[in-house]
Amino acid sequence: MPELRESGVDRLLAFSDGVFAIAVTLLVLDLREPTVSHGLLDALLKQWPAYLSYALSFLIVGIIWAQHHWMFQLIRRTDHIFILINVVFLMWVAIVPFPTALLSSYLENRSERQTAVAVYTAVFFVGGLLVNLQWRYAIHRNRLLGAEVDRRAIQKMTLNYAVGPLLYLAGFALSFVSPPASIALIVLINLFFAVSPLLLDRLLS
Amino acid sequence: MPELRESGVDRLLAFSDGVFAIAVTLLVLDLREPTVSHGLLDALLKQWPAYLSYALSFLIVGIIWAQHHWMFQLIRRTDHIFILINVVFLMWVAIVPFPTALLSSYLENRSERQTAVAVYTAVFFVGGLLVNLQWRYAIHRNRLLGAEVDRRAIQKMTLNYAVGPLLYLAGFALSFVSPPASIALIVLINLFFAVSPLLLDRLLS
Amino acid sequence: MPELRESGVDRLLAFSDGVFAIAVTLLVLDLREPTVSHGLLDALLKQWPAYLSYALSFLIVGIIWAQHHWMFQLIRRTDHIFILINVVFLMWVAIVPFPTALLSSYLENRSERQTAVAVYTAVFFVGGLLVNLQWRYAIHRNRLLGAEVDRRAIQKMTLNYAVGPLLYLAGFALSFVSPPASIALIVLINLFFAVSPLLLDRLLS
Amino acid sequence: MPELRESGVDRLLAFSDGVFAIAVTLLVLDLREPTVSHGLLDALLKQWPAYLSYALSFLIVGIIWAQHHWMFQLIRRTDHIFILINVVFLMWVAIVPFPTALLSSYLENRSERQTAVAVYTAVFFVGGLLVNLQWRYAIHRNRLLGAEVDRRAIQKMTLNYAVGPLLYLAGFALSFVSPPASIALIVLINLFFAVSPLLLDRLLS
Repeated sequence: MPELRESGVDRLLAFSDGVFAIAVTLLVLDLREPTVSHGLLDALLKQWPAYLSYALSFLIVGIIWAQHHWMFQLIRRTDHIFILINVVFLMWVAIVPFPTALLSSYLENRSERQTAVAVYTAVFFVGGLLVNLQWRYAIHRNRLLGAEVDRRAIQKMTLNYAVGPLLYLAGFALSFVSPPASIALIVLINLFFAVSPLLLDRLLS
Repeated sequence: MPELRESGVDRLLAFSDGVFAIAVTLLVLDLREPTVSHGLLDALLKQWPAYLSYALSFLIVGIIWAQHHWMFQLIRRTDHIFILINVVFLMWVAIVPFPTALLSSYLENRSERQTAVAVYTAVFFVGGLLVNLQWRYAIHRNRLLGAEVDRRAIQKMTLNYAVGPLLYLAGFALSFVSPPASIALIVLINLFFAVSPLLLDRLLS
Repeated sequence: MPELRESGVDRLLAFSDGVFAIAVTLLVLDLREPTVSHGLLDALLKQWPAYLSYALSFLIVGIIWAQHHWMFQLIRRTDHIFILINVVFLMWVAIVPFPTALLSSYLENRSERQTAVAVYTAVFFVGGLLVNLQWRYAIHRNRLLGAEVDRRAIQKMTLNYAVGPLLYLAGFALSFVSPPASIALIVLINLFFAVSPLLLDRLLS
Repeated sequence: MPELRESGVDRLLAFSDGVFAIAVTLLVLDLREPTVSHGLLDALLKQWPAYLSYALSFLIVGIIWAQHHWMFQLIRRTDHIFILINVVFLMWVAIVPFPTALLSSYLENRSERQTAVAVYTAVFFVGGLLVNLQWRYAIHRNRLLGAEVDRRAIQKMTLNYAVGPLLYLAGFALSFVSPPASIALIVLINLFFAVSPLLLDRLLS
């Protein structure tokens, strides 16, 4: 629909924010109250992999939401292909509770936790690729950007986005050596992403 | 409420986008982590019908969301009957996780998969009819359109919407011959819908 | 917060629409795929109380959403008490999946369906009272209305809202005589509400 | 992203309202229909801890939503750290269904209810701290406020927010003496918060 394509950013964001908010809130469904007749505190403490998985996935999706958020401060239009990429991206966002539940269930299973951690890191690697695809499609020849383009801001964001998949790929590789080390790396990656806009800010200004 | 009827498009969209976003995100609840003590990777791979059903339903609902989205770029008003049609349409959107779970559970059951595929295609046939009903109600004598109506855009959209139910009906019929062929057709239909705005664009311009 | 009270209608609506959309979409969780190895079609047809309950509750919540929607076309401000009433109202909206699941589970249990239908009708009676409380609080001495008040529109809406609880009370009473008749009445009530704005329109103009 | 930071309040609110609305609506999933063949009414009445937990958590989250709502009537900008605090705050909002389910399951278990009540009050204590952290970060040197700052309104809000964690801490301490008294205190705290804006209004004007 040619005459319809170059607008609709608002509704795209409303739909996307809805999927983000729901996916992240559904993570709580994996925190189940233990059914014990005594020893509740112990039973609760034993569920630490579920709390760790909840917090980690929530933090990651929160950071990706913030990245999506920044992207749309520069994007002024949508087109059909961009909407399709966004639907695929949201399909990824909505699936996050699944690898999270997997991690939570198998983190203490010594023989199977490698698989769970590899799947978890692979899922976020794919998510990072999709963020980059969406961003690069939008900035290619200023396709969906506003009239006044701040080249420097775009370069900083491109750099910021590009680092993600590489780090998750490292986490995936590391899971074959040591699953706990891989999870520790993912935690560090996300603490880095949480502060990277502040760091980039200092380094480049 | 006569004096109240001709407005409220914004809130109708907020409610609709909410239902779309939630229905599509609830699809993940059907992806369950296997409970095995070893052989996790095999158990995960064996769940391929769940992943296929998730991706297919997400893609279909995403495309229908985009169609709903286009519709509201031309619709400028609502009235009571239109709101009622939209409530029934959303009742349909929200039910999608049910036939999806059915497809996921029975795709490998040779004796019952025909029923599951027939129900799945029938549900999307009904959804396609509802999209057409809503659109035709809105455009009848320009009932809910803006002052400047682009006849050509409306014809293209009417054509685009009309094709859907016919194709799902074909998928329904095909399920009685071969359920896998029917699912393959549904996948192809939706890849077609994903690119049809681009094709229509080229053909008619 | 006196200086903060007279605004915030937009965010109140965003939160309310979110709760409406989620409550209504969660209804699908009560539609479960049967786990049978053969006879799937029969198993699906046997679940008719679940489909009836889903459609009825979705329709009712859809109509109440539309009523809430109309209300906010006249309301221009909020205050603290109004926000509190709205929180209690949303607490009611969000609970709807519970009596719906009850109705779905017990509609075919001859000895217990009276309880299920009585609870179902009682819940909607309370919901109707809350809609009236919210509306009457808002219109009392034009407390939260705009400067130009259309007395006639307000009277029509007050009348429309007042009928609801009375009809649900009749459904509650009828459940003690005949649960199926009570459900039939609830269906009729809601078909009436679906068309009542059109009827009131004709009668009073 | 320095040039991107000072905006985006709208989308932050849309995402936050989504998480609030979903977290609060997911509370209903803990209200399960009893599976009995007779004695449904008794079975329903026996579930009173589930109803109490639902209503209490819904009320608390509703009040915290209203507090978040007031905050954003004065906040005009966001920055990266504020977004991070908000993500952590939403991580807290979304977890509320978990302690609620715990309270619902263990309120009648005499030996374990102390643990459940202590966890419940501790979770809301943390939530109260996060509200204060977010607010104090925003008002520090008018960091994120508008140009015209009403000192008095800000002081009232700071006071209002500061009381919360102290009261929940008292509830936590009381749970070790008497779990029912602790729950009664939490109910009273929230009835106080429901009316406190009205009281502060009277006292200070």
